[in-house]
Amino acid sequence: MDDLTHDKFMGGRLRLWQPRRGYRAGVDPVLLAASVPGDVQTVLDLGCGVGAAGLCLAARLPGVRVTGLEVQPPYAALARRNADETGLAFDVVEGDLTDMPPPLRDRQFDQVIANPPYFRRDRSVPAQDATRETAMGETAPLEAWVRAAARRTRDRGHVTMIQRVERLPELLALFDRYLGSVALLPLVPRAGRDSQLVLIRGRKGGRAAFRLHAGIVMHDAPSHQGDGEDYSPAIRAVLRDGAALPFP
Amino acid sequence: MDDLTHDKFMGGRLRLWQPRRGYRAGVDPVLLAASVPGDVQTVLDLGCGVGAAGLCLAARLPGVRVTGLEVQPPYAALARRNADETGLAFDVVEGDLTDMPPPLRDRQFDQVIANPPYFRRDRSVPAQDATRETAMGETAPLEAWVRAAARRTRDRGHVTMIQRVERLPELLALFDRYLGSVALLPLVPRAGRDSQLVLIRGRKGGRAAFRLHAGIVMHDAPSHQGDGEDYSPAIRAVLRDGAALPFP
Repeated sequence: MDDLTHDKFMGGRLRLWQPRRGYRAGVDPVLLAASVPGDVQTVLDLGCGVGAAGLCLAARLPGVRVTGLEVQPPYAALARRNADETGLAFDVVEGDLTDMPPPLRDRQFDQVIANPPYFRRDRSVPAQDATRETAMGETAPLEAWVRAAARRTRDRGHVTMIQRVERLPELLALFDRYLGSVALLPLVPRAGRDSQLVLIRGRKGGRAAFRLHAGIVMHDAPSHQGDGEDYSPAIRAVLRDGAALPFP
Repeated sequence: MDDLTHDKFMGGRLRLWQPRRGYRAGVDPVLLAASVPGDVQTVLDLGCGVGAAGLCLAARLPGVRVTGLEVQPPYAALARRNADETGLAFDVVEGDLTDMPPPLRDRQFDQVIANPPYFRRDRSVPAQDATRETAMGETAPLEAWVRAAARRTRDRGHVTMIQRVERLPELLALFDRYLGSVALLPLVPRAGRDSQLVLIRGRKGGRAAFRLHAGIVMHDAPSHQGDGEDYSPAIRAVLRDGAALPFP
């Protein structure tokens, strides 16, 4: 993996190396990182890839110590390089979330974040690129992600994931089983349209009723306007200025 | 149960007898009935109470044959009286959805609708009134409702329920297990607020991906305006004019 690009995130506040082919971080890890509240001290980015979510979080909240876990060595190496070059507080552990490596096995975090693979292998066509396949095609089932996240979260700490809406019935049941106080923040592409992505959060040991928040509208115009960017002000602030994305 | 009120529904298109105390139908069964598309021929209203949802549906779609199942004799009797006095095509069967009575055991419907009890007995204070307790306090678990609804639906037919958002994790998992092509229509009290109620629909034998529709805003004003009614135009049309509530 030596064909790399060096891409700007959060309006250039962050530049990250990632493979030209294979899984490439887009806006989703930025939104995930922006949803973490400012009062956490330790965060685990489960399946961190090149470190996009974890590094966006570390850049936005300088006092937070962020750890990333990544199963694929080339991505873990890029995540380390990105942490070194940006100088941000982001430690990378190489390992499998279904067989938690020793440095993490005894640790718990205030907050765990994850952007699990979006496609179920039994229902999708495998990607050509092998690393892209692992990043997008789901090696571990979604249950393993939620279980590992819950185990690595301290009592009363939070787990937040971003995922395609198609997986919501399964994901909601898992958050309800392994966590509590589940809340859903739909990301609505344009006003009145179906959601494609959701942010979901659970609290370890939480007992509050499930909450369904009003969706956050991503784009202002009723349809895409040529090549111009038409993000809504709240989303533009997140993606361009490194603002927080309030998840009530 | 002889202390009754005779209440207007859908702007007076329908007047229904219901007990002054105990469970009383409000806007929820009207919204549920309005969400049923016009192309169905047979509908089962599971747990019909005094028949509010079934009769609203029969009034809006005159060609549709609607059957109601109700476990509590006084409510079943009122549902029959309401059907007789309105002259609408609504048959009432008295019986328990967990032990389906013979007239329904061999029948399947194009569409099943239900407004299951809103509170879990193990988490709520029992109501004083015994019939209200059965209507609101959940005798049969939610799983029995979804399973009975799925069994009484023809292949490719639909089940639609209205329910408080707190029950959504459980309800979504049940719809995913017993039905398919699950879709969710949040009812948003006011723009930007959390949903309190949802309409959920599944298709028997359906295999489409889960869909999360944009929420329907119930009230226009940012907060309640004195005693005045401030329903949004779409909801006012449903509640006052008997209009359909589009569930995409």
